[in-house]
Amino acid sequence: MSGGAGGGGAGAISSALPAIPSSKLPDLRFLSRGAYGTVSAARHADWRVPVALKCLQGPLLDSDRNHLLKEAEILHKARFSYILPILGICNEPDFLGIVTEYMANGSLNQLLHGKDMYPDIAWCLRYRILYEIALGVNYLHNMNPPLLHHDLKTQNILLDDEFHVKIADFGMSKWRVISMSQSRSETSLPEGGTIVYMPPEDYNPSQKTRASVKHDIYSFAIIIWEVMSRKHPFEEVINPLQIMYSVSQGQRLDLSETSLSMDIPHRALVIGLIESGWAQNPDERPSFLKCLIDLEPVLRTFDEIAILEAVILLKRSKSQYESQCIHFVLETIHQNVANQWIQSRREEIIDQMTEACLNQSLDALLSRFLLMKEDYELISTKPTRTSKVRQLLDTSDSQGEEFARIIIQKLKDNKQLGLQPYPDIVSNSLRLHF
Amino acid sequence: MSGGAGGGGAGAISSALPAIPSSKLPDLRFLSRGAYGTVSAARHADWRVPVALKCLQGPLLDSDRNHLLKEAEILHKARFSYILPILGICNEPDFLGIVTEYMANGSLNQLLHGKDMYPDIAWCLRYRILYEIALGVNYLHNMNPPLLHHDLKTQNILLDDEFHVKIADFGMSKWRVISMSQSRSETSLPEGGTIVYMPPEDYNPSQKTRASVKHDIYSFAIIIWEVMSRKHPFEEVINPLQIMYSVSQGQRLDLSETSLSMDIPHRALVIGLIESGWAQNPDERPSFLKCLIDLEPVLRTFDEIAILEAVILLKRSKSQYESQCIHFVLETIHQNVANQWIQSRREEIIDQMTEACLNQSLDALLSRFLLMKEDYELISTKPTRTSKVRQLLDTSDSQGEEFARIIIQKLKDNKQLGLQPYPDIVSNSLRLHF
Repeated sequence: MSGGAGGGGAGAISSALPAIPSSKLPDLRFLSRGAYGTVSAARHADWRVPVALKCLQGPLLDSDRNHLLKEAEILHKARFSYILPILGICNEPDFLGIVTEYMANGSLNQLLHGKDMYPDIAWCLRYRILYEIALGVNYLHNMNPPLLHHDLKTQNILLDDEFHVKIADFGMSKWRVISMSQSRSETSLPEGGTIVYMPPEDYNPSQKTRASVKHDIYSFAIIIWEVMSRKHPFEEVINPLQIMYSVSQGQRLDLSETSLSMDIPHRALVIGLIESGWAQNPDERPSFLKCLIDLEPVLRTFDEIAILEAVILLKRSKSQYESQCIHFVLETIHQNVANQWIQSRREEIIDQMTEACLNQSLDALLSRFLLMKEDYELISTKPTRTSKVRQLLDTSDSQGEEFARIIIQKLKDNKQLGLQPYPDIVSNSLRLHF
Repeated sequence: MSGGAGGGGAGAISSALPAIPSSKLPDLRFLSRGAYGTVSAARHADWRVPVALKCLQGPLLDSDRNHLLKEAEILHKARFSYILPILGICNEPDFLGIVTEYMANGSLNQLLHGKDMYPDIAWCLRYRILYEIALGVNYLHNMNPPLLHHDLKTQNILLDDEFHVKIADFGMSKWRVISMSQSRSETSLPEGGTIVYMPPEDYNPSQKTRASVKHDIYSFAIIIWEVMSRKHPFEEVINPLQIMYSVSQGQRLDLSETSLSMDIPHRALVIGLIESGWAQNPDERPSFLKCLIDLEPVLRTFDEIAILEAVILLKRSKSQYESQCIHFVLETIHQNVANQWIQSRREEIIDQMTEACLNQSLDALLSRFLLMKEDYELISTKPTRTSKVRQLLDTSDSQGEEFARIIIQKLKDNKQLGLQPYPDIVSNSLRLHF
């Protein structure tokens, strides 16, 4: 199945996805770990531009290889102004990676929920972000055959230098076929992700449904709510099954002014879009074309200079926040606060630190070059969780304050509440480049 | 010959250029006329984004068709962050067009020489523009086989919403082959263009030379000079043969502070880049990789917030200029200045208006919907230049002030000095959207 957008029959002009040898991507810098492999930043040795690399490493399973190759093909066919541009593929016997443009401003999720870094986000910029997401998904749905993303969430909406939208992560996306059976059977629950963006009719993949074309608009409704409220959807609910139950029963997120401030310009229109987008009956949800037509008059009320000023405001507050953090970190390093706290709570940490938190700590330490390979192997080859954590803390004792600080940050990020109170170190998980 | 960049042998993943039916591009708005057809703006009916359309119309010659199709193929294969993104091709029996993203800020030429609209351009932004051009051409030269642009000039460097560079117009570009004979025989003088960006060894296409890979860097040196001086290269020379003669003899543009202000930061480095780039001996000119390595430390001295502020400054002055112009135009329309001037100088205009100026006036009037098709045919079917101009002025008498104003603007643009003094209407050729 191929995916040239639009009708007509030219099709003669085609382009092969460039192959990029891994030797052209030296000095990988770890960014994050996802369901499929890791994402790193690098700089292409010949092109001299920063790139992102989503890759599988180690012994590669054929199924994982094919999954990543399929995603590369989709990115290559779905090129558009608001889709993350793929630059090439690095396909070698023991290494497989998708190389894309590097997005300096991270994800929409980081923007919305990094309230320390970004205390204010202008409404005009929020509207532009929503509008560009809709333009991107509308393009995908207009391809021939239509491409359904099926994993829209704020983590997958990336932001470039000027906070323009680039939609990423096509690992769950599929070409819409005329017989819906294939599409239906492929639907699956998100792996290690979140179900808040998933429409209720997709909770049960075996159920008969013709709705998969109305999946993305449900996710978009949740994203609109999240962008306008700057809250995590269903934040107070701990058990995902509880969310699934209440959403199946028709319950939705709060639309009162507690969540959606009365200051939102065109508030009634936004609420209308959200409510129609997450309608229980998929047939009642609008197309993305309809969303665009609704949003266009709103976008025209905003001045492009005002939007750029909003972008500068974000860049300023980010840069201020980072320099404050560096100052604060240098001070706490001087005072040895983190190391002392770990030593005083040692047995409790060994008792309570989860496997996920341990792995995240190791990733973060590796990516900052604070943990040597030998020490990493010493920890990861221990047989049990407790012995791994014990080894990590032993290593921490012989390392500096920064090492201890990262462990504490990960404990806080993972909401390991039993270890409260935490020492007063930087409150956000911030990647520092000394 | 195909053009995936980089080495390696994946190549399995390919993407067809989308076909776009002309029915999806209603309400074309004329932008400019080039060597090959016209460029118009439109909005894609389904995608809801502005697009540009470079097209051939009327009875299409096979050679013109193939030329435009070849350019579409190159744009599709050479996709990169600083290359104009092609969105699709509109290939129909009596219509052929390349559809690209629409670049709201026009060309680098318009930015540099529109001094009324843009009195100031910050140095940091000029450096970013030069750096992004070099990144774009460096990518082309790193493709496999290398792609040589061979028509770099400020008219072909387009600027997006935030004044980022998108290199356009690949009508003269060619894949570099190992035997240089093919490349050599294809070299030709620019059609209706300018020779100031062309290296002297290419003036005589039959001459033996291995230099075609060092063509683009010569053009880039001229562009650097133009960006830093905001002057037209060889502006004072009227006869192109005179430029060719003196450049062949080793003469170059002025590097004194008359052209390159002492205020230019890193001035010595800029002059070094220019001088090496336009060296008489092509082998002495640097690669684009070398240029990038020289420019990188300079770019690091500029703050990204300062560059964005420079962008806002340009947008502000553009918007102020446009509103002043509208005000001024409304006033002169009220006073009927242009119409009165044309009536008083009627016979001189008929005597002196050139064929080129006449055609440009007709284009401009058509694109603003000021000239009806019947009137256009009445003018263009007249047998001689003078009878055409006479018919144009007859039509002008029965039309409004705006019609007359455009004729005067075109006379001024074409430097028809014999008709001076002109009435005091808007001094720049400005596209007004009432």
